[in-house]
Amino acid sequence: MKRKPQSEEELLTLIRRELPPVDSSVMTGIGDDCAVIRSAGRAGSLELLKTDALVEGIHFIPGTPLDKVGWKALCRPLSDIASMGGSPLHALITVAAPATWNTSAWRALYRGIGKAARQFGVSVVGGETVQSPGPLFLSIALTGSVPKRNRKLRSGAKSGDLICVTGKLGGAFKSGRHLNFHPRVAEGRWLGGENAVTAMMDLSDGLGSDLPKLARESHCSFRIAPDCIPLHKECSVGEGISDGEDYELLLTVNPRLWPSLQSRWGQASPRLALTPIGVILAHGEQCTPLTKGYDHLA
Amino acid sequence: MKRKPQSEEELLTLIRRELPPVDSSVMTGIGDDCAVIRSAGRAGSLELLKTDALVEGIHFIPGTPLDKVGWKALCRPLSDIASMGGSPLHALITVAAPATWNTSAWRALYRGIGKAARQFGVSVVGGETVQSPGPLFLSIALTGSVPKRNRKLRSGAKSGDLICVTGKLGGAFKSGRHLNFHPRVAEGRWLGGENAVTAMMDLSDGLGSDLPKLARESHCSFRIAPDCIPLHKECSVGEGISDGEDYELLLTVNPRLWPSLQSRWGQASPRLALTPIGVILAHGEQCTPLTKGYDHLA
Repeated sequence: MKRKPQSEEELLTLIRRELPPVDSSVMTGIGDDCAVIRSAGRAGSLELLKTDALVEGIHFIPGTPLDKVGWKALCRPLSDIASMGGSPLHALITVAAPATWNTSAWRALYRGIGKAARQFGVSVVGGETVQSPGPLFLSIALTGSVPKRNRKLRSGAKSGDLICVTGKLGGAFKSGRHLNFHPRVAEGRWLGGENAVTAMMDLSDGLGSDLPKLARESHCSFRIAPDCIPLHKECSVGEGISDGEDYELLLTVNPRLWPSLQSRWGQASPRLALTPIGVILAHGEQCTPLTKGYDHLA
Repeated sequence: MKRKPQSEEELLTLIRRELPPVDSSVMTGIGDDCAVIRSAGRAGSLELLKTDALVEGIHFIPGTPLDKVGWKALCRPLSDIASMGGSPLHALITVAAPATWNTSAWRALYRGIGKAARQFGVSVVGGETVQSPGPLFLSIALTGSVPKRNRKLRSGAKSGDLICVTGKLGGAFKSGRHLNFHPRVAEGRWLGGENAVTAMMDLSDGLGSDLPKLARESHCSFRIAPDCIPLHKECSVGEGISDGEDYELLLTVNPRLWPSLQSRWGQASPRLALTPIGVILAHGEQCTPLTKGYDHLA
């Protein structure tokens, strides 16, 4: 009896082994929030590519209003583009829907997608509708661009950097916030322009799962002050660490540049907190133990 | 009781109405084989975007060897990039697989994807694996590029143009060819460089469904000589017209330039036929009646 992959990491390693090497235009392939491509002829600008899927019964419960499903479907990859410091451009929407869907079901889904597209300046340029013999399945491919010097990866954190998060964490599912969150597109673009920011990613699987990924890519350890984690109302520290779907930004900041960044952030985004919650340590030091977030294969 | 969309066309109209206008870089949005984007700073070159989904039980039967599923999944959007006269670049692979999949199932799927990526020069740069509570679902987003003057659309056919197809048609399902076809990537790129070619698309839903789409986008009618349709062994003319998944190229050719194109094609692609099967007529003339190909909503 063959074994199953034990983690997303093991699966990624297995997948990489079957694929040919990527071409020289690929600066970041499988493994970060988005793929990063050097564009021929566009010296200062990089292309970002992201795809993200939603499955009924996994990412939302059956019976969820379809306009909310549509909003969430487009806002999730928008959060990834934001986490690279980029701006979204073009989307392709794939929908596998039950054959029973009537026109108002289709309209509701695309009303939610359209609302997010309008709000964040995305052009929907194609996609596909197919029949699903099972649950509703959505997959959105999104392109974006980022000035080369603004691009933020998971791998840039250095020992001594402050670990910060935007907004508040926890309870996205129980509050329904996972269906109507606002991806931090403007904030991500702003932070992309800041030299003080050394690494960035979005919080989709939960701090307890995502921070170790950032630390691993940066070959660093981390220490967190759990009491400093900004929490949504009626959320425990444990929920703030292990609940997923916050769609806030997790970033590391050069500590010498923090005071200046903090004061300019307050002017640029007066209604959204940017909170230091810990510090990056050298590789090999003991990390703060965190309850793991979501890993769909674990 | 709300009604269901009666056709893909009606559904597309409904979808378009819910979405905001596209930005000025979009030259071709929803409706052609690929989206076509003007790239900032790349004067002579256009960006192509395509997404394509495969659903178990719809596009392949349960139990199909997974390496063949992987091959087909990447080769389908490759056929669309080819049909624009373009070259493929980067792919994002989304797989929703049953939780029961073991490592050799994953390996087989990605072996097929990897084989196609290697053969046609595609870099796989990202994607996602999620759990499916239902059937296997694959969605592939593919980028490509095409020199601006090589781009072929469905809308360029003119009255008097010859209608041609590459290769032979019919029987892709019963022969199993729908699992191991070769997308016409080199041939499409070659035809893209030919001024004689006025419109092009790939044959995925069957000639009887796809030719009317090309004619509609070109505001033309058509006449076909059914006896001229090149058929696979043991296929009837009816199957050549209405079977889907041929993944050959359907193109229209300026008749004055046909003799020269034909002779150079014979040198460039000696092993693949390029066959005239009819002629484009002015808008409003009577079209040859064709048995419709596949429309998943009809």
